[in-house]
Amino acid sequence: MQQKNQPIITLTTDFGTRDWFVGTMKGVILSIAPNAKIVDITHEIPPGDIKSGAFALFAAYSYFPENTIHIAVVDPGVGSNRKPIAVKTNSYWFIAPDNGVLSYALINEEIKDIRLIENEKFLLKPLGNTFHGRDVFAPAAAHIATGISGTKIGKKLTEFLRLEFPKPIIFKDRIEGEIIYIDRFGNAITNIKFKPDCSYYNCQVYIDNRPVARVRRCYADVQKGKAVAVPGSSGFIEIAVRDGNAANNMNLKVGKKILLRVLE
Amino acid sequence: MQQKNQPIITLTTDFGTRDWFVGTMKGVILSIAPNAKIVDITHEIPPGDIKSGAFALFAAYSYFPENTIHIAVVDPGVGSNRKPIAVKTNSYWFIAPDNGVLSYALINEEIKDIRLIENEKFLLKPLGNTFHGRDVFAPAAAHIATGISGTKIGKKLTEFLRLEFPKPIIFKDRIEGEIIYIDRFGNAITNIKFKPDCSYYNCQVYIDNRPVARVRRCYADVQKGKAVAVPGSSGFIEIAVRDGNAANNMNLKVGKKILLRVLE
Amino acid sequence: MQQKNQPIITLTTDFGTRDWFVGTMKGVILSIAPNAKIVDITHEIPPGDIKSGAFALFAAYSYFPENTIHIAVVDPGVGSNRKPIAVKTNSYWFIAPDNGVLSYALINEEIKDIRLIENEKFLLKPLGNTFHGRDVFAPAAAHIATGISGTKIGKKLTEFLRLEFPKPIIFKDRIEGEIIYIDRFGNAITNIKFKPDCSYYNCQVYIDNRPVARVRRCYADVQKGKAVAVPGSSGFIEIAVRDGNAANNMNLKVGKKILLRVLE
Repeated sequence: MQQKNQPIITLTTDFGTRDWFVGTMKGVILSIAPNAKIVDITHEIPPGDIKSGAFALFAAYSYFPENTIHIAVVDPGVGSNRKPIAVKTNSYWFIAPDNGVLSYALINEEIKDIRLIENEKFLLKPLGNTFHGRDVFAPAAAHIATGISGTKIGKKLTEFLRLEFPKPIIFKDRIEGEIIYIDRFGNAITNIKFKPDCSYYNCQVYIDNRPVARVRRCYADVQKGKAVAVPGSSGFIEIAVRDGNAANNMNLKVGKKILLRVLE
Repeated sequence: MQQKNQPIITLTTDFGTRDWFVGTMKGVILSIAPNAKIVDITHEIPPGDIKSGAFALFAAYSYFPENTIHIAVVDPGVGSNRKPIAVKTNSYWFIAPDNGVLSYALINEEIKDIRLIENEKFLLKPLGNTFHGRDVFAPAAAHIATGISGTKIGKKLTEFLRLEFPKPIIFKDRIEGEIIYIDRFGNAITNIKFKPDCSYYNCQVYIDNRPVARVRRCYADVQKGKAVAVPGSSGFIEIAVRDGNAANNMNLKVGKKILLRVLE
Repeated sequence: MQQKNQPIITLTTDFGTRDWFVGTMKGVILSIAPNAKIVDITHEIPPGDIKSGAFALFAAYSYFPENTIHIAVVDPGVGSNRKPIAVKTNSYWFIAPDNGVLSYALINEEIKDIRLIENEKFLLKPLGNTFHGRDVFAPAAAHIATGISGTKIGKKLTEFLRLEFPKPIIFKDRIEGEIIYIDRFGNAITNIKFKPDCSYYNCQVYIDNRPVARVRRCYADVQKGKAVAVPGSSGFIEIAVRDGNAANNMNLKVGKKILLRVLE
């Protein structure tokens, strides 16, 4: 099979792109798995922001082909005793520090195996304490890409750190939710799942008790400069301003409470 | 042929790189066309700025091998009734919303076929209204990369939206032009084509009636910190400051009028 | 061999990613060497900052497989009489303007051949004076990737411009060094090499005669918000703030003197 020969490895990190960090990880991967196809999901996770990293990976991972190996490195505890882990699910491998960064992506995955990454044969030497993206996660993922069995990576673990996904509170006439991510366009993604069979298109979004936007089909359903709520591309209701920046205009931040209420 | 097996798909978007949008498009492409080579032209087009997207694509597309598939997504009307289109030329495919973003690149191309992207077999399901880069343009391009015929994409169209390229006004002793793009170095690209056989090297650039720079061969032809006009890499005269930032120094913006005058 | 068929070409430039420059270079490379795997090291070197480019390449190049072709374009003198060169070492090719950008990477490499890039067969036509990344360095690297011999590139040179790597001054009880790079996290990389066999873990870093940080194993060895010095991933002592930004907090800049002193 063609695809087997070109295993896909994705990268989600907070390393940025202005230094050589990501390039170095790719060099390590290609030294071990020369045929790997490496795809950047993002490297602009705010430094150390594990939850944003978890959400980005959650929003992207399932669009990749089966057997893709996802590396996620947002790792403020690098060099401490937090564990490097490799998690095999029904469809993918996930390689990351065990600090919660895999939490959201693994909500819907069937866990097949969890391994501590500890076999020194699969780590870079000398092993540093500040850049495990290069020294631990990249080589582990690359060795998995070459087909080594998970049992060789390290001892079996029974659990990993799971951060709670913030759940909305659902009442009969309203849903209380919050903003969980602000994207590059200033769109504010909420934690309220859009369900096509619900009457969301009859709803209004409130912030601080003020109505701010109706739920519509798409940005262009309102005039330029006007606020609108739409079913966003990750499956959640998001608040936007057509041809504008909702987060700036309305001073929206992650964690801000919002209310979705059915109109009479 | 080697190259046929690794079709090239380029991406020009305003999605930025801080979220997961571009990575997700790549996942969709590789799920359909595992051998595709995906090349980023840029993702930093200012949000919704169709003309800048059109210019970036124009400046880059022709440097790619024949049969490259160019995706351009600057798409403020996503989800509205603007049409997704696929345009085949003598050398390339172009995949984009029909909002003018292909205008400049297609000026010099021979149009062979224009198709509405509408065949649901080639779209992601469920099809959203906010991210057609992922749901429409990526899968359409990937299916084309696998070799499907254009006739299967959707019905034949006879035209697409063409934005006028701003043309300079040419007089006997001078050319009146304007700035059409400011690049990362602060170089201001004008709409005045450099012609090697003209006497441009005997010309002076004026802005607001003041002489600002002579046309020279390269940046290093003037001293550090001095302004210079040079034949830029896209074929147009550009205004620069050696080892400096012309746009900042001279407060240059897109749309600013400039005058090129032959010196006595 | 699989790897021979997919030669690796890396890119280290100051072109940024907001324009089409890097994408265009990749188009040129793939037009000549369709099987090349192109890896970005970084494109965010500050415009014209040759030393930062030299350091980024130095920090990354050796993590790539043998026969990788490294392109480095930080080229303020483009179009002037500075020479484009190709340097073959025991393990790699390096392609760059001869302005010092290869200096640090080549410190530890055994030089096998130095060539002037001058054979017009391997340059883009028409050859411009402002973008040799596209017109000279990309095609030269791509032709080398296809296996042409170095002798065809141009005449043999005997030397290239070497910038001095700033060396620390080593005393019996202290080392006087300086900051040579600030990374995306605000970590300040010094020019003091970490040697595992030394008693660095018994040392204190001084700036402006004030003690600022002890040398520890990893960031997490101090409390959040506290300064720490650690053996960084490039082999040098670096000054960091746990979960913070040392450069901002302590107003650290490249060139700033630091002192490492053994504690009594």
